[in-house]
Amino acid sequence: MRAVDLIRHKRDGGTLDRHAIESFIAGVTDGTLPDYQASAMLMAILLRGMTPDETAALTDAMVRSGVRVSYPEVRGVPVDKHSTGGVGDKTSLVLAPLAAACGAVVPMMSGRGLGHTGGTLDKLEAIPGFRTGLSLDELKAAIRSVGCALIGQTSEIAPADRKLYALRDVTGTVESIPLICASIMSKKIAEGIGGLVLDVKTGAGAFMKTAEASRALAESLVAIGRAHGVRTEALITAMDAPLGRAVGNANEVIESIETLKGRGPQDLEELSVVLAARMLVVAGLAANEGEAAVRVRQAITSGAGVAKLAEIIENQGGDPRVIDDYSRLPSAPDRVTVTASADGYVSALDAEPIGRAAVALGAGRNRLEDDVDHGVGIVVLAPPGTAVRAGEAVLEVSHRGGRGVETALALLGPAVRIADRAPAVAPLVRDRIES
Amino acid sequence: MRAVDLIRHKRDGGTLDRHAIESFIAGVTDGTLPDYQASAMLMAILLRGMTPDETAALTDAMVRSGVRVSYPEVRGVPVDKHSTGGVGDKTSLVLAPLAAACGAVVPMMSGRGLGHTGGTLDKLEAIPGFRTGLSLDELKAAIRSVGCALIGQTSEIAPADRKLYALRDVTGTVESIPLICASIMSKKIAEGIGGLVLDVKTGAGAFMKTAEASRALAESLVAIGRAHGVRTEALITAMDAPLGRAVGNANEVIESIETLKGRGPQDLEELSVVLAARMLVVAGLAANEGEAAVRVRQAITSGAGVAKLAEIIENQGGDPRVIDDYSRLPSAPDRVTVTASADGYVSALDAEPIGRAAVALGAGRNRLEDDVDHGVGIVVLAPPGTAVRAGEAVLEVSHRGGRGVETALALLGPAVRIADRAPAVAPLVRDRIES
Repeated sequence: MRAVDLIRHKRDGGTLDRHAIESFIAGVTDGTLPDYQASAMLMAILLRGMTPDETAALTDAMVRSGVRVSYPEVRGVPVDKHSTGGVGDKTSLVLAPLAAACGAVVPMMSGRGLGHTGGTLDKLEAIPGFRTGLSLDELKAAIRSVGCALIGQTSEIAPADRKLYALRDVTGTVESIPLICASIMSKKIAEGIGGLVLDVKTGAGAFMKTAEASRALAESLVAIGRAHGVRTEALITAMDAPLGRAVGNANEVIESIETLKGRGPQDLEELSVVLAARMLVVAGLAANEGEAAVRVRQAITSGAGVAKLAEIIENQGGDPRVIDDYSRLPSAPDRVTVTASADGYVSALDAEPIGRAAVALGAGRNRLEDDVDHGVGIVVLAPPGTAVRAGEAVLEVSHRGGRGVETALALLGPAVRIADRAPAVAPLVRDRIES
Repeated sequence: MRAVDLIRHKRDGGTLDRHAIESFIAGVTDGTLPDYQASAMLMAILLRGMTPDETAALTDAMVRSGVRVSYPEVRGVPVDKHSTGGVGDKTSLVLAPLAAACGAVVPMMSGRGLGHTGGTLDKLEAIPGFRTGLSLDELKAAIRSVGCALIGQTSEIAPADRKLYALRDVTGTVESIPLICASIMSKKIAEGIGGLVLDVKTGAGAFMKTAEASRALAESLVAIGRAHGVRTEALITAMDAPLGRAVGNANEVIESIETLKGRGPQDLEELSVVLAARMLVVAGLAANEGEAAVRVRQAITSGAGVAKLAEIIENQGGDPRVIDDYSRLPSAPDRVTVTASADGYVSALDAEPIGRAAVALGAGRNRLEDDVDHGVGIVVLAPPGTAVRAGEAVLEVSHRGGRGVETALALLGPAVRIADRAPAVAPLVRDRIES
């Protein structure tokens, strides 16, 4: 079948068989399928959907577009965590060292921030010298010596995904569940893990706004993992307000280190511990979450977690002295605050406009090629539930010479909601899907 | 708004305003919009549709992507005819000389065959020396001296349409009513006509299979013509069996000449006369179809029509001696027949497989760059309604050394239907939409 016939078939609501999907991905990978045909197919997939079998076949073809890493010299089941993206979500920086300190093997491949959500690689690169661009050999060496590496997608891993993602970004074809699932899972499967914990965000600041949509995404991801022999679980967690207090890059690194030192905000610590505990469970290192959580908390109190982070930073060329000297991290010199408009309680801090404000300041990107300013950001001074008086500071904005401040403040003003009474406390973890 | 945001807006079912459509077409025309974004937009338009206002704006932007021709030295309203494509549809070769012989100004721009339907340009190029690729100046000179030219789309006419059509062909985005309407009407409006008669085919051999779909297409086309000040009418005509007896190129030229000499098949003569008469009406040269049809028939009996064709051929570099000497036209040397499988009546000859068989023989194209063999084709020996005996020839296939014969015969066998009784005679013209 010619490419145009495959496009027409999907356009008309048809199902693509494994062979058709393989030929589509092969053409994307070797460049024989022109971008204009790939983008027409992507739009047809977005608007017509894919069956679970099609999504699994797409994932599989994308995995096999590159290498599937293995760690023959390492004992144990390599595990990873993936978040669908939130504002202030720095759990990777906390849980990867904690899980590794508890004996897990963590070859974690992360992404960059795009849109209103941050990216782990941008945060790590706030640490002077830190290299996220390890080769596969360097990754394997890091796993042998440290048990953990925090890196970006290498060129050998799911190259079809790299090409398709770049095309989706400029053709309005990002927001497709099957394409999102295949993109996430192909990279995770190719990095050679045997266990995966997914943090599927739900709420106004998440890609999925409703519990039902988040659950559908989580179930689709878990099904793909299961089909590929990866023990996969998903937690559905709240993303209405930013996670923790810091939104940016260097300020999120500081908050992560503070959390590893046992001094982090309660929500960030809770979620990091639960996710790390689930990683130990899917790795077969603990029988249940309760037992695993005890060990993870011990890694905080003993200092083993923060020591592991120092080890990771040093192994990847970064300056481990940042752990005890935050002045070694970039920091924008200028400050402005957003204040409460009335007496009352902070009832909500809308994550999405706060994320967009951080992007406007330079902490994130509108386009993949944009530069990131690691020193700017936003800190929550009065989290939801705090009693405030009119004029009292709720958010503090760090900026560099006023860049983006006007846009940021226009977004942040309406993002701070004040009410007469304190908001009800909702649980952070809303649901769980196991394979 | 960035291109990706326009794509997302249409993808989500939104309406594009005139400014958005103009920026899309401007980007297509000057090449600043990458093909992959254009194709994603085309697929979103195909699947989400366009309102009449959007379609009108798209047509307008495509007209203004090039020049809009005018004929200041010519008196009268230039008129044209357009068919949505049929099998054996050679009415242009008959009606253009007839209308011009009756005083109409006919700057007719036609297309090439693609898929199972033939194209006027391919048929004309069966005539030795005939040039369809006139420049705009040559077109204007032909209109001044002959009153009629039969040419292809020049590079100055709706260049956005040329680019989009090429892209639609390879991205599965041909079958969209708004895109079809804008493509047809932008070219017709840009060629500088004041009146247009549309022959919208309906039936199993047409692009539109049902009366309702054909009527919807016709109404959309007529509305666009009206909005651009072009007096536009549409006839909805049957396309179940081939029109006339000949399907190919040189054989269709011969049948057209025979029809101009008053010896053509009844269906072809009837449709050509009706369409030519409507052209005289929309040009303001006749008060009504009855009066116009009398004049058109006189142009057949007087020989004025066939003389005008000779004039057109000569003016465009062709050999006018073909009119009295068909041996000057290419003819494939080999013959094979398709016979009746039983005694009875020919109840149907399915136009689409017959068109596909002609393509297989080399008379048409699967891709725009394919070469055409002007001498091959199919002739209907026993049209629907004819009583036949088992084994009697129904179709005669002209081929060159067996090329494509196997495929053609496999298509033609089931296309010939024999029944116990003669089929009911259905009218050729099914409906009419006036502006």
